[in-house]
Amino acid sequence: MSDADAARETGEDPDASEDADVGEDLETSEDAAEPIEVDFGEDGLVPAVAQDADSGEVLMLAYVSPEALDRTRETGEAHYYSRSRDELWHKGGSSGHTQAVREVRVDCDADTLLYLVDQNVGACHTGHRSCFHRTIDGEHVGERVFDPDEVY
Amino acid sequence: MSDADAARETGEDPDASEDADVGEDLETSEDAAEPIEVDFGEDGLVPAVAQDADSGEVLMLAYVSPEALDRTRETGEAHYYSRSRDELWHKGGSSGHTQAVREVRVDCDADTLLYLVDQNVGACHTGHRSCFHRTIDGEHVGERVFDPDEVY
Repeated sequence: MSDADAARETGEDPDASEDADVGEDLETSEDAAEPIEVDFGEDGLVPAVAQDADSGEVLMLAYVSPEALDRTRETGEAHYYSRSRDELWHKGGSSGHTQAVREVRVDCDADTLLYLVDQNVGACHTGHRSCFHRTIDGEHVGERVFDPDEVY
Repeated sequence: MSDADAARETGEDPDASEDADVGEDLETSEDAAEPIEVDFGEDGLVPAVAQDADSGEVLMLAYVSPEALDRTRETGEAHYYSRSRDELWHKGGSSGHTQAVREVRVDCDADTLLYLVDQNVGACHTGHRSCFHRTIDGEHVGERVFDPDEVY
């Protein structure tokens, strides 16, 4: 791989990452893997999708600060930033419904994260496995896995 | 189901939806399905996760305005709101890489959507099936499905 190719893979300039990615060569790029610099934007937060690493079920979406990302990577358990409480949020810290993070992925613009997790019990405070347990028409399609009255 | 139960299922008050959901009864609520009112918040946009309806792969995250949601439901093809272009965005309108939406789900707070889609070719403008084709360590884990130079 040429130096130019290697430079295109670094993703160190979030503003340039979209264009830089267009010319990438998937077959040869894995040797040059370098950490992606996440673009936390003006508010210092990025959305993060939590997905069950085994079943593929999308469990929840929450927001992540630089500190939350650091804590996630240090501890191996999902951390977010609670916008309502305005503080770092260790998911499952009080309920015990933690998420062991197997892998963190970053999207092409480096402004959204995907946490691949092993979810303990359920992700949703309503007692469902996933927060996405309703269709927009109001049908319930998700699995109820615990009684929130017994947890919170 | 009592009227009180039915009222709790409507989700018509986004601010109350979290608490209202806690007491829901999954077994009996499907009869009373009523449309969920999405909480578009101050900026009028909600994040939407697009997931492959068959494989479960998370394809992308983008933002949805009320108009984009209406167009999605009317046409059956995913629409978003492009924040960079500041306009309604019919995904695949120029590339042909449309998303047929099988189902729209809403999270417990009604402020995030999940589109379950049949993705035509690839979701990412870089030529990958998914925008989440890199780990945060810069490893390429995603499938390349088209050459963006030939599409855009």
